[in-house]
Amino acid sequence: MRIDGRPYRTIWTADDGATVVVIDQTRLPFEFATRRLRTLDEAAGAIRSMVVRGAPLIGVTAAYGMALAMRPEASDDAVRRAHDVLLRTRPTAVNLRWALERMARVLLAAPSSERVALAYREAAAIAEEDVACCTAIGHHGFAILQDLAAGLGRPLNVLTHCNAGWLACVDRGTALAPVYAAHDAGLPLHVWVDETRPRNQGAALTAFELGAHGIPHTVVADNAGGHLMQRGLVDVCFVGSDRTTANGDVANKIGTYLKALAARDNGVPFYAALPYSTIDWRLDDGVAEVPIEERSAREVTHLHGRAADGRVLEVEVVAPGSAAANPAFDVTPARLVTGIVTERGVAPASRAGLAALYPAEAPRGAA
Amino acid sequence: MRIDGRPYRTIWTADDGATVVVIDQTRLPFEFATRRLRTLDEAAGAIRSMVVRGAPLIGVTAAYGMALAMRPEASDDAVRRAHDVLLRTRPTAVNLRWALERMARVLLAAPSSERVALAYREAAAIAEEDVACCTAIGHHGFAILQDLAAGLGRPLNVLTHCNAGWLACVDRGTALAPVYAAHDAGLPLHVWVDETRPRNQGAALTAFELGAHGIPHTVVADNAGGHLMQRGLVDVCFVGSDRTTANGDVANKIGTYLKALAARDNGVPFYAALPYSTIDWRLDDGVAEVPIEERSAREVTHLHGRAADGRVLEVEVVAPGSAAANPAFDVTPARLVTGIVTERGVAPASRAGLAALYPAEAPRGAA
Repeated sequence: MRIDGRPYRTIWTADDGATVVVIDQTRLPFEFATRRLRTLDEAAGAIRSMVVRGAPLIGVTAAYGMALAMRPEASDDAVRRAHDVLLRTRPTAVNLRWALERMARVLLAAPSSERVALAYREAAAIAEEDVACCTAIGHHGFAILQDLAAGLGRPLNVLTHCNAGWLACVDRGTALAPVYAAHDAGLPLHVWVDETRPRNQGAALTAFELGAHGIPHTVVADNAGGHLMQRGLVDVCFVGSDRTTANGDVANKIGTYLKALAARDNGVPFYAALPYSTIDWRLDDGVAEVPIEERSAREVTHLHGRAADGRVLEVEVVAPGSAAANPAFDVTPARLVTGIVTERGVAPASRAGLAALYPAEAPRGAA
Repeated sequence: MRIDGRPYRTIWTADDGATVVVIDQTRLPFEFATRRLRTLDEAAGAIRSMVVRGAPLIGVTAAYGMALAMRPEASDDAVRRAHDVLLRTRPTAVNLRWALERMARVLLAAPSSERVALAYREAAAIAEEDVACCTAIGHHGFAILQDLAAGLGRPLNVLTHCNAGWLACVDRGTALAPVYAAHDAGLPLHVWVDETRPRNQGAALTAFELGAHGIPHTVVADNAGGHLMQRGLVDVCFVGSDRTTANGDVANKIGTYLKALAARDNGVPFYAALPYSTIDWRLDDGVAEVPIEERSAREVTHLHGRAADGRVLEVEVVAPGSAAANPAFDVTPARLVTGIVTERGVAPASRAGLAALYPAEAPRGAA
């Protein structure tokens, strides 16, 4: 997507065909800077320190990290070592393991003399597949936005939570892909951006990427969405998903469930937009079965911001001595989800709905 | 309530019988300091700069401000001037106008030679009435907590939003009065404290006062409450109210409505605790009729915290250039409220319920 009118992806190869370039997301939203990755260690460090984040982007960066690792040495041992180093960077990201296993399988099947070129090609293929997936999600979601906007006579108001935009992927995003598709097609819209405490991905990343692409938006405290819906100021909610059960329960950033409840209470449609890779066909009951990561209390007690002197620093915001808890995700039951938008189309949030989109993947007898 | 074992109120007169002392709430939660008010201007400044905040405490401080004003000059003109100066400090606080009108009426009816002593007595009476009201709310709410805790075999988990504690009143608080009553009676409990963005009254004030009194509590992001309820970690919600309609709709800090929805979805009882003075008998439909204050966007884009060097400063947290909106309150419809706890008892959140508690105040035919 665009930043100041110039098209960007979150990751690309430099003109030398070898160096990998990423947007340094730790400097956003206060500074736009890129980081050049030249070695396996630099790629691993970028993932570990969250220079890149978002499951799809982590997977692609790891794939390119394998390519960087092949340059000095392309032995079987080097493939396995690079796989292991990269896998340890973020223990819970599903896409990371998937991308690394794919890279190792492809590389080990080829002679070592071909592995450098092959690794770059395969990493690029993974990146292109992610873009194609997000583009398809955008296409299907755009149709929903178009229907809702028909005859409205004012910009369509979309509410989103956290960052499921292009900064989390390679391009276009998941929940925001329909927004970009609609905006680029000339559909007038405005996005309510939930701040998304404790890590503020909405205020920092979603607001940044929407602003950079020129999409009208307004940041609100996470507390505000219910009130906005009561007053008729939200036409539709679009969120992403970190894991989706076979029956359509959606695990996503903490607080998503509260917005889904408010949407239901006010007759506002609520969609989750997600690639096939987040669907966990083994699970049937999100609230009971999806493990919820408990992150550091320090993310609640402290936060980062830019001081008046321009320095970005950490400040303490909770009464000293008070404990804090930090569950990172919650589960929105399928009954609150109007539909699930994937690269294959829009399905009702149900076992039958998802199985109809993915007949091969769904467990037998699911529909 | 207690701070480090020592009993406090938010406002009192010093040993000289003239100086008024308040807790400086702008320094909380990082520093406990008191401020001495010796003149009308100092009292007005303390309200204006939010050294004191919370509707009941603002009213009491204004009443003492009238007493301070009478010391140099107790003429009719001085009474009216003090009334006007204090009324301008916070334009929207209902209790402020009520307390000032009561003080002016009492003072103007007495000879000027008696006005200094009378003003201190009347201000003290207003403070005592507030304490009595909060104590009664605590008594009635405690019975609810006792019932819920019966046979539980573990501490009762209470969730609260914003600060409706003793720091907003003179002592004990409204939503937290039942918690203090229960704790002081030996009932084991634990409080989930919503951070309450954008102004963080939960993380700063509620966490401070619970911690200072020795009540176990945990601060969470406002996004977390729904997840906690899904996992059975909340037994009851208690919130305050800024305005309550005759039919039991509760206008309270933004985000309250989202917690009420989650409580309903998970079968968790949801109570609003409030003094009679917040009931607006003229209103029947909170969502349609309660005006919602839109506060400065800067409260969303910036926040205060303590840096590593100990300085309390403001940092920017939203992408530069992004707009922000800041509705300060929302309305929880009566259908989501299990009961309303007032100084007179517990009523169903309905016109009939409130009218039964307040037969004289409710509009005729209301029940």
